[in-house]
Amino acid sequence: MDVDEAIHKRFSCRSYRSEPVPDELVRKVLEAGRLAPSACNKQPWRFAVVTDHESRRRIVEECFLPGIRMEWALAAPVHIVLGMAKSIVTHMAAPAVSGVDYPWVDLGIAGEHMVLQATELGLGTCWIGWIKPRVVRTVVDWPGGVKPVALITLGYPADEEGREKRQSKRKPLSDITKWV
Amino acid sequence: MDVDEAIHKRFSCRSYRSEPVPDELVRKVLEAGRLAPSACNKQPWRFAVVTDHESRRRIVEECFLPGIRMEWALAAPVHIVLGMAKSIVTHMAAPAVSGVDYPWVDLGIAGEHMVLQATELGLGTCWIGWIKPRVVRTVVDWPGGVKPVALITLGYPADEEGREKRQSKRKPLSDITKWV
Repeated sequence: MDVDEAIHKRFSCRSYRSEPVPDELVRKVLEAGRLAPSACNKQPWRFAVVTDHESRRRIVEECFLPGIRMEWALAAPVHIVLGMAKSIVTHMAAPAVSGVDYPWVDLGIAGEHMVLQATELGLGTCWIGWIKPRVVRTVVDWPGGVKPVALITLGYPADEEGREKRQSKRKPLSDITKWV
Repeated sequence: MDVDEAIHKRFSCRSYRSEPVPDELVRKVLEAGRLAPSACNKQPWRFAVVTDHESRRRIVEECFLPGIRMEWALAAPVHIVLGMAKSIVTHMAAPAVSGVDYPWVDLGIAGEHMVLQATELGLGTCWIGWIKPRVVRTVVDWPGGVKPVALITLGYPADEEGREKRQSKRKPLSDITKWV
């Protein structure tokens, strides 16, 4: 699948078959994240691969604010938690210049490498934010220096055909772009 | 070019041929960014495509701290400035829950869609951070509600063969991943 096709086919998959994802494919997805570029090549990302049912149940039931319904995510056989390892250069020096915490940009880059690689492998994914980082850290047992930032669910889509109607609308290019 | 190949071939290109990039290809790159997923589908990204020589000269000479040598970037015939449009929901509500400013993650996602699409088109790219946002805003004439976050240079690589030796080392997967 070429890049252009993967970008067009990717969608936020919220319905999964129960079939597990072979470790070999999970590793291929992680490898795509590992190869991402990052500010000063700091590679601030950390990945926790959660396949255990009880840990995924805890993520779904305990790691979101009340009222946010995440039951669908339990059907995804793999949750990849993206964490950020702290670094003085990129977390303190860069924000002082640009007001930008580049490691968050880097996590977006690495996560989307995984999402596009998964799409190519026929897997569905969904980025999930708004997590309670302290609870997620307890579930995956990361040290205090690693901050959970987001999750990506991973599994075989239950409804491949319904993809098109589930794709979110985008602003037209003319609304978001200017030529200088 | 499939996704896996693009992820492996992408590198931070700091040497460009002077040949301009056809608008059609620039638009294809921008379209890849436009289709990126984002928190609450807010699409916080804004793109400024800078091809004018004087504007690129100002970016290279005025938008970085003294001592950071960016002359190489002037050879890139296109600079894409990535900006972030402010939104109350994702900039204020989400950080209160997670301590994460998701639009920065979103900008990483959209920017890397562009980078991988460019790679497939035979174009070189380089993410550049540490910019002075106020000066960049003046160059691209964005309103105060749009914050310049990063640049991506775009053009035909001068030295396609030298790619491998320029690729940065990555931590092994075992150092950045745990299985739960």
